[in-house]
Amino acid sequence: MKTLADAFHHTLKDVYYAEHALIKALPNVIKAVSQADLKAALKAHLAETKQQVTTLERIFASVGQKATGEKCDAIEGLIKECDGVAAEATGKVARHAAILGCCQAIEHYEIARYGTLREWAKALGNSEAHELLGQILDQEKAANHTLTHLAVTAVNAA
Amino acid sequence: MKTLADAFHHTLKDVYYAEHALIKALPNVIKAVSQADLKAALKAHLAETKQQVTTLERIFASVGQKATGEKCDAIEGLIKECDGVAAEATGKVARHAAILGCCQAIEHYEIARYGTLREWAKALGNSEAHELLGQILDQEKAANHTLTHLAVTAVNAA
Repeated sequence: MKTLADAFHHTLKDVYYAEHALIKALPNVIKAVSQADLKAALKAHLAETKQQVTTLERIFASVGQKATGEKCDAIEGLIKECDGVAAEATGKVARHAAILGCCQAIEHYEIARYGTLREWAKALGNSEAHELLGQILDQEKAANHTLTHLAVTAVNAA
Repeated sequence: MKTLADAFHHTLKDVYYAEHALIKALPNVIKAVSQADLKAALKAHLAETKQQVTTLERIFASVGQKATGEKCDAIEGLIKECDGVAAEATGKVARHAAILGCCQAIEHYEIARYGTLREWAKALGNSEAHELLGQILDQEKAANHTLTHLAVTAVNAA
């Protein structure tokens, strides 16, 4: 990793791996929650995540690279934390609140990474990647907004 | 973990572990960067992190608990990613930008967790914890703001 273009390509592989990991992990999280609104929000975000993988493939193409993932330790840790909470939280309120908190942490991670990638794409003069990364970033921010709203409603109800 | 109070205590142990892990990890990150402004910002954040540990101990006391950490897989993964980038990035620009990106991801993680904890403290009627968590949250947001500013300056210079 010598240039900003190298760092961009490296981080793109990280998020590509991360989105695939989430596609694999989210069905278990959806199964672990009973609250209807949270279940629906997570299902919608799973569908969105699948679209984001396709968008990422267009971004790889924009830099003349084949889409490949590279193990992302951060998302592995974030998912492990979420799985741990789902297993440990036996009370309905605690389970709901704790899973929501973990999902928000995952969204924040993605917001940070896509924010960085979008700025790098701009600096690299790649307007197509800049626009596509902006689209994904907006989706992640909207998903986080939905989760925050659900979290506030959940703790108030509790 | 049955109640919201249990989830609060569990997540408090997570962030207590995470701040200790950062106190251990940050000196290596500071060593790995050469850019003066980033070095100074990370040094300042290390000092702030040490204060936050003391603040967290006051929050544990506010719920009648002894301050203890519990392994936080998310921060372990985030730090591992940062270490990996510092080792792989040989070019000065790539190294600077990539380390900044990882530090922003860590800040975003902390913002998510402290945001959740602060809301839970409010719902639990613990005004002391609510206020103290709000102080830490503001510090993390300010640290992220500084890093974002440095990141934009860095990529523009590159």
